Amino acid sequence: MAETMNMRLIMVEDGSAKFEANPTERHYNPQMRVHGGYAATLIDSAMGCAVQTKLPADAGYGTIELKVNYVRKIDGNTGRLECIAHVIHSGRSMFTADAKVVGGQGQLYAHGSGTFMVYPK
Amino acid sequence: MAETMNMRLIMVEDGSAKFEANPTERHYNPQMRVHGGYAATLIDSAMGCAVQTKLPADAGYGTIELKVNYVRKIDGNTGRLECIAHVIHSGRSMFTADAKVVGGQGQLYAHGSGTFMVYPK
Amino acid sequence: MAETMNMRLIMVEDGSAKFEANPTERHYNPQMRVHGGYAATLIDSAMGCAVQTKLPADAGYGTIELKVNYVRKIDGNTGRLECIAHVIHSGRSMFTADAKVVGGQGQLYAHGSGTFMVYPK
Amino acid sequence: MAETMNMRLIMVEDGSAKFEANPTERHYNPQMRVHGGYAATLIDSAMGCAVQTKLPADAGYGTIELKVNYVRKIDGNTGRLECIAHVIHSGRSMFTADAKVVGGQGQLYAHGSGTFMVYPK
Repeated sequence: MAETMNMRLIMVEDGSAKFEANPTERHYNPQMRVHGGYAATLIDSAMGCAVQTKLPADAGYGTIELKVNYVRKIDGNTGRLECIAHVIHSGRSMFTADAKVVGGQGQLYAHGSGTFMVYPK
Repeated sequence: MAETMNMRLIMVEDGSAKFEANPTERHYNPQMRVHGGYAATLIDSAMGCAVQTKLPADAGYGTIELKVNYVRKIDGNTGRLECIAHVIHSGRSMFTADAKVVGGQGQLYAHGSGTFMVYPK
Repeated sequence: MAETMNMRLIMVEDGSAKFEANPTERHYNPQMRVHGGYAATLIDSAMGCAVQTKLPADAGYGTIELKVNYVRKIDGNTGRLECIAHVIHSGRSMFTADAKVVGGQGQLYAHGSGTFMVYPK
Repeated sequence: MAETMNMRLIMVEDGSAKFEANPTERHYNPQMRVHGGYAATLIDSAMGCAVQTKLPADAGYGTIELKVNYVRKIDGNTGRLECIAHVIHSGRSMFTADAKVVGGQGQLYAHGSGTFMVYPK
């Protein structure tokens, strides 16, 4: 889904991942701002990749829950965003992570956290 | 954004709204299931419309925070989903709502809640 | 902990549970209103009991995550509260539930949701 | 309420605050572990104090929503905990913050985030 959202993984390290995203008017809600689902998708993507760095190659995982705080309006003039995610807790079968969505001048647009469950594939 | 997600508002009443959605493989994440952002978008859309039924025509609103619980895998075989949202709290400037995403046999796929702030336009 | 909080289980059915609570000035935060932890404790208690109705006698469980929305100030004049919780999703090892905290005239003070993991004892 | 919980503010700086806490068997839930409301209270306390460092002396504030992730069991043997909170977003009327609850060896027990609204007193 990341493609239809103009989102790309640009960095991955042990326990963290970074995406870039370019929201446009195609991602608007009827309020003429970028849909809340956009940052949620970005945050879920980045957190999931961060969690994956902690897993063996043959393990799958899924999001159990996700919370997003929206702190600044995103619209078609916002430009390029980055989302950086970090694993907070690494358990046997459960992980938690958080993420921030920031703009080109470092201003914060949204942040979130989530819980991920690991499944043997 | 609802269009690129195959989502449509199908019912709106005082304090509630219902969307239908048809997730496909275009909405997959790299784990080959529908991206967590999909249900988040659906839930945010339905809750936002439910809140809007409580507002004067000239008021705008935005999502302050959104939480989603994912309880069943959604994939390209899931078929048509419905998301029904209800306003829980109607305040002067703040609203809360919740929503459920269910399949054709009434099985639950995800549920969530959120906080919405009202802005004079 | 429920005792030091003036909270008591007053009803339990299949998939739901109800607590009553009497917050006092002993439960204030420095802002001179009842601490956010009070409703969180009440909601977690009621949701946990609701989940327990779905479990075999020898199973334990724990809260994985909890979210609370605060929609009305609680203080020493609020009087008796009730918190009613319902299981939303019953899985093999994971449950979700939600709960509402209401006053004597049915007015809503807080609501929340949570995820619970089941452990063999 | 912090007193009945054995919690104390031990550090406050611009945009952050730290509490210490000593959970005991008095804070148990019927599962014989420390109640989920305990860490929720600690996190809400620390985040609230962190937010207060950003406010003029005559402003009040309240928690709008709170989410807590529980990642490790807390019981009567856990010993002293610290909770460190940081403001994430400082707006005109709305703030967000997050917090971590850690033990003596730095092990993580819980973490959370919340939204706070500022009210003129």
